[in-house]
Amino acid sequence: MNQHELLKECSLKNDKKILFCVVDGLGGIQKDGKTELEVARTPNMDQLAKDGSCGLHIPVIPGIAPGSGPAHLALFGYDPLQFLVGRGILAALGGGLDVREGDVCARVNFCTVDEQGVVTDRRAGRIPTEKGEQLCATILSKLPPIPGVELQLKAIKQYRAALVLRGAGLGDALNDSDPMKPGLPHLEITGRDAASEKTARILQEFVRHVREILKEESPANMISLRGFGIHKPYPRFQELYKLTPAAIAAYPAYKGVARLVGMDVLDCGKTFDEEIACLQNNWEHYDFHFIHYKDPDAAGEDGNFEKRVELFEYFDSKLPTLRALNPDVLIVTGDHCTPAVCSDHSGHSVPLVICGGLQRNDSVQTFTEEALLRGSLGIMQSEHILTMAMAHAGKLKRFGP
Amino acid sequence: MNQHELLKECSLKNDKKILFCVVDGLGGIQKDGKTELEVARTPNMDQLAKDGSCGLHIPVIPGIAPGSGPAHLALFGYDPLQFLVGRGILAALGGGLDVREGDVCARVNFCTVDEQGVVTDRRAGRIPTEKGEQLCATILSKLPPIPGVELQLKAIKQYRAALVLRGAGLGDALNDSDPMKPGLPHLEITGRDAASEKTARILQEFVRHVREILKEESPANMISLRGFGIHKPYPRFQELYKLTPAAIAAYPAYKGVARLVGMDVLDCGKTFDEEIACLQNNWEHYDFHFIHYKDPDAAGEDGNFEKRVELFEYFDSKLPTLRALNPDVLIVTGDHCTPAVCSDHSGHSVPLVICGGLQRNDSVQTFTEEALLRGSLGIMQSEHILTMAMAHAGKLKRFGP
Repeated sequence: MNQHELLKECSLKNDKKILFCVVDGLGGIQKDGKTELEVARTPNMDQLAKDGSCGLHIPVIPGIAPGSGPAHLALFGYDPLQFLVGRGILAALGGGLDVREGDVCARVNFCTVDEQGVVTDRRAGRIPTEKGEQLCATILSKLPPIPGVELQLKAIKQYRAALVLRGAGLGDALNDSDPMKPGLPHLEITGRDAASEKTARILQEFVRHVREILKEESPANMISLRGFGIHKPYPRFQELYKLTPAAIAAYPAYKGVARLVGMDVLDCGKTFDEEIACLQNNWEHYDFHFIHYKDPDAAGEDGNFEKRVELFEYFDSKLPTLRALNPDVLIVTGDHCTPAVCSDHSGHSVPLVICGGLQRNDSVQTFTEEALLRGSLGIMQSEHILTMAMAHAGKLKRFGP
Repeated sequence: MNQHELLKECSLKNDKKILFCVVDGLGGIQKDGKTELEVARTPNMDQLAKDGSCGLHIPVIPGIAPGSGPAHLALFGYDPLQFLVGRGILAALGGGLDVREGDVCARVNFCTVDEQGVVTDRRAGRIPTEKGEQLCATILSKLPPIPGVELQLKAIKQYRAALVLRGAGLGDALNDSDPMKPGLPHLEITGRDAASEKTARILQEFVRHVREILKEESPANMISLRGFGIHKPYPRFQELYKLTPAAIAAYPAYKGVARLVGMDVLDCGKTFDEEIACLQNNWEHYDFHFIHYKDPDAAGEDGNFEKRVELFEYFDSKLPTLRALNPDVLIVTGDHCTPAVCSDHSGHSVPLVICGGLQRNDSVQTFTEEALLRGSLGIMQSEHILTMAMAHAGKLKRFGP
């Protein structure tokens, strides 16, 4: 029996509400002797640590820094080494394209090539989103039908777009066309099995047409494709947990991973304040809300320690509003750490509080990496957080006789 | 995707150096209220605990006391329940025999039998190593060819030797011939499948010849065979971690397990001081060094608490020399505990410090089992130590989109 079978057997529906609040990139390492959380003044997070069960968690294995996809899958209780997620599927689902079983998805970049086809700018000068939308419309209006395949192309943000191919017998054993650094030509897309060879021929034809359509454009006169993946539906969150889940996330990738597990993705604006308003407006309609706060991750990737301190303090100021909704169980954690010192996601354990319901208290008084280490949850796998929260909410029955 | 596939995908080469220092049998349990580490004066290990990330680790599952083979495989990141290692293979590789895929290996004991073939001494009075070498030479010079098989026999230490059979279609589903206690005759070696039956007949013929060759010898007038195993190459350490690894271990078994994963095994003398000299001499040539300090394990098996205290203090005195090499990441840990109270390996968690690079500090001040428990690494699986050290050294890229 695996964890999902166990959950299906043990989960039960009641009227308790769980609020799962993900502060992207929460948790750091010391700079001049202190971590971001140790410097930040966070009285409300400290109070939450006092009130709840504390600990830390490991997204994959210690040391492995996950991308947003695997990190969120782990938070939702999906083993990220079993449920591998491709960049293309995340882009397509995040962009709200209609993705069905068997469709091939890819992440698209608008880029700049010279007359010889050498990539001079992989991001086409980071064109604005509106330009990307206009280019997608142009391509779709001029593209001749390609036999055997239905095609969706949609702008996501700036130079990013997503592509979905639908047709019989497609494959995804395909190489990226993006050379990943400027000064090189695009790679010819080829397939490593029969179905993928067929798909590669379709993609080659598509790319040829796009090049022709965009040839007078500047700077975005070409596209690259990467992260090919065939969509296979995941076990549905609803069926595992018997929850009615809503996802509130401004950024496409997080919408994507929420859609992947079957959550209702709410239209929530662009800022964390707008997300909170969306949460308040939809509070009655769901018994599980996932709300995502992106900014601390971006500041971490920029190596901006002080900014992260500010953003944690900002989040702290919003926490009373979240608690005022009176969730029966409130989870506050990150998907992974993004220490400013690393300027990148890291593989350190991630701060965690689960507050409310049938909880074991501990004597943790502050929301810092080291203080949380003394909590009653210890260091756990991310994959088990939600099961623990379900237990807090009385949503699990006994396993076995 | 399993851990090894994950490592292959995420590991990257840079110029950082990792020093992995294994103090065999490190970590104990209390005698008169204190553990060996709590009694020992270890200012340098305490300083390392202050400087690094602290924790403990579990080689297999809590309570399971591993042998040297599985314990070191776990330290090297090989799941010891998946990568089972036989005594014969460890003996053959440790002894420096030429072992190739498909070879059958066995551990050999010289022993004493009476006229009826009853074993009177399983270790032939612990004959000196030179005598073992001489007996092996005698056997090889007088042994007639055995059809279908090429054979290596090599003395290891005292009464111990190793045997390697090479030939087509050999099997290793074979019982040991060693009765494991005196007063019993040797067991006839039989095979549990067709390939192993063929191999058993070869081994029976070999043993008959050896008995004839040794019949005038005393006390070593016979051999026993055990721990049969066919060698299947392991995933190479180099390919998993993109490291260039050297092993510095005076004792054969540790050379064996290092060879098993593909490390360069350096010629390092017999004492820890000689090992350290070897490390210094080879420091520039590798980016990963495994150095092994054996003595505390032997003292633990002897139940000698005070000796272990002394040996930990001795190790402590050498730690500044190791740190003077300026490894980018230094790991100091054990393969398992050998508490003097147990007079044996034990299944308790093993002390661990990983120091250097992108580390999360903690407030641990002393290198003792209880103090380390408050460290930022928590209690982890041994299998993940090296991944964490790789992260400290910036040798892992992000997993997934």
